[in-house]
Amino acid sequence: MSKDLTVVSYEGLFAFAKKIFLKIGCNDEDATLATTVLLSADLRGIDSHGIARLIGYVRLWEADRVNAKAQISILHETPSTATVDGDSGLGLVVAPKAMQIAIDKAKNVGTGWVSVQNSNHFGIAGYHAMMALEHDMIGICMTNASPLVAPTFSVERLLGTNPICVAVPAGAQPPFVADMATTTAANGKLEVLQRQNLEAPYGWIQDAVGKATRDAHALKTGGALLPLGGDKEHGSHKGYALGAIVDIFSAVLSGANYGPWVPPFPAYVPMPTGMPGKGIGHFFGAMRIDAFRTAEEFKQHMDQWIERFRSAKTTEEHDKVLIPGDPERYAEAERKQHGIPLLQPVVDDLRALGEKLSVSCTF
Amino acid sequence: MSKDLTVVSYEGLFAFAKKIFLKIGCNDEDATLATTVLLSADLRGIDSHGIARLIGYVRLWEADRVNAKAQISILHETPSTATVDGDSGLGLVVAPKAMQIAIDKAKNVGTGWVSVQNSNHFGIAGYHAMMALEHDMIGICMTNASPLVAPTFSVERLLGTNPICVAVPAGAQPPFVADMATTTAANGKLEVLQRQNLEAPYGWIQDAVGKATRDAHALKTGGALLPLGGDKEHGSHKGYALGAIVDIFSAVLSGANYGPWVPPFPAYVPMPTGMPGKGIGHFFGAMRIDAFRTAEEFKQHMDQWIERFRSAKTTEEHDKVLIPGDPERYAEAERKQHGIPLLQPVVDDLRALGEKLSVSCTF
Repeated sequence: MSKDLTVVSYEGLFAFAKKIFLKIGCNDEDATLATTVLLSADLRGIDSHGIARLIGYVRLWEADRVNAKAQISILHETPSTATVDGDSGLGLVVAPKAMQIAIDKAKNVGTGWVSVQNSNHFGIAGYHAMMALEHDMIGICMTNASPLVAPTFSVERLLGTNPICVAVPAGAQPPFVADMATTTAANGKLEVLQRQNLEAPYGWIQDAVGKATRDAHALKTGGALLPLGGDKEHGSHKGYALGAIVDIFSAVLSGANYGPWVPPFPAYVPMPTGMPGKGIGHFFGAMRIDAFRTAEEFKQHMDQWIERFRSAKTTEEHDKVLIPGDPERYAEAERKQHGIPLLQPVVDDLRALGEKLSVSCTF
Repeated sequence: MSKDLTVVSYEGLFAFAKKIFLKIGCNDEDATLATTVLLSADLRGIDSHGIARLIGYVRLWEADRVNAKAQISILHETPSTATVDGDSGLGLVVAPKAMQIAIDKAKNVGTGWVSVQNSNHFGIAGYHAMMALEHDMIGICMTNASPLVAPTFSVERLLGTNPICVAVPAGAQPPFVADMATTTAANGKLEVLQRQNLEAPYGWIQDAVGKATRDAHALKTGGALLPLGGDKEHGSHKGYALGAIVDIFSAVLSGANYGPWVPPFPAYVPMPTGMPGKGIGHFFGAMRIDAFRTAEEFKQHMDQWIERFRSAKTTEEHDKVLIPGDPERYAEAERKQHGIPLLQPVVDDLRALGEKLSVSCTF
């Protein structure tokens, strides 16, 4: 373990984060939910979306961009759909509640689909999609996000890293959970390189005039993240299309902001002008397995699918083929047992946050 | 126009293809439908999936792998879902009928989702997804396909190019239609390079031991197409996950074959052993716009979305940012007016097919 890392217990971190959410005005239920969702990122090894962002959420609340006492409401619905107003709440709270609506609709008519306006960043997509698993449903989750990504041929940042998650239950095998940004690399991976002053591979970012660059700091000088594929020759128009689909389902369908008008996560960045909607947008889906075939049959075949892919012959450099969700599951097993490693700046930030809000440190 | 190309009228080509489908036993309605779907690929500039494949479909019928008199049936349903048995029919006929079921369900309960087993190749995904547009619905379509793609870290071909199409209606603007293979490049693009004896860019294919190669013929010597992203560093695990999602939704959900067991398109390739399902699988979705917000409001914002992206500032090398569906729409306008250019070997194959089946050439 690097000396720059402090390992803390999940329980200690949970108690601290919950007290912070209570302090900014969440009720007990919402504070528990927000903490559970936030820390699911740390457990699953997606450090960029976990406790390190707590201070960012608090700053959004301080800037009056987040309503800690939000009451979500259904603006419009059909038997299989709903449009939800997040009341400017924490996405960490709005998202699981909206996903629950999708699940409830799926119980009634086979599938449920919910588009959400007026929300904020919701942690990892994986948490929400995976809520479907215990109901023997396939879970789907996507969200738009602050614009950092240039469409193919453009130098403007018009899309967020707009992740898609699809979670599929299996039988004896663990579930299939694909949770991915629609960019070549998520912004969190770039931040890792920035901290270590390393160069990025070509295909991750472009500079201000749209040229491929390895400068991991290029976003600070007008550059942009690239859609999955990197450049046209390698299919970046497909990554751009995927990010666009996420934007449309999450925001054009719900009445949230889209494209360059999505509100920024850092509270110090001014809001865009001429915003066409409310807050950021999410999209959730739940499909009951037994709306198609019996769950038992499905799981048996899903196990066979997973086993066949996991046992596929590998290249010389690798000893196994991974199933989507494997790396996060390994991280979760490790971190539940041994604790969550935090970088010293994250620990320092959290301690300062605790002092500022008079919340004692419990980790 | 190259001297290797013969330009034929859509109407002439349509009359010929329809007579072929009638000859193999389709009724008039199915022959019209199959022809319309097949030629929509030629119109939209996706030559690999159009009339050039007619002979391939006939060979599948000759090999008793396609039932020209198929009657599709619903195996299981809920208000928003159905599982359809394609009766081993032409995918060109099964797919639009299954999509129609999705649309009908969306009319009733907001959305409709149909998973199909026991089908065959269905032409371009775009045709089926775009059926939703005239109903003010978002259309979704995917299919699995013969295994040509290696999952990240593997040397085995376990996935097809597994396309996804999402079609979204707009107002004054043309619709947004993203129709894409989940590989870096579709097999059709590789075939173009093979014919011209050109090398492929790195990131499209790997050789038999999983090394990156530029040899466009590498699939013939044990190589594989690569998932969108190309390699792990450039996000190929995401392209692999997307292809896997298509496989699961299309086949594990429906009871079709999946992974390496998907039946091959060329009739001379033996069927895999130990097949876990029936035929190939598709998945269709239709979401009524007004199940979320009024179609009028949605289209107004969709127009704004499209206009903002289309007018985005470009890099020096490009003069505009494309909206998904633009290239195919341009091709369709051109080819409707001036005809469809066919390569000489395709013309020769069609003439030979006509002679063999005693169908006179009408183009």
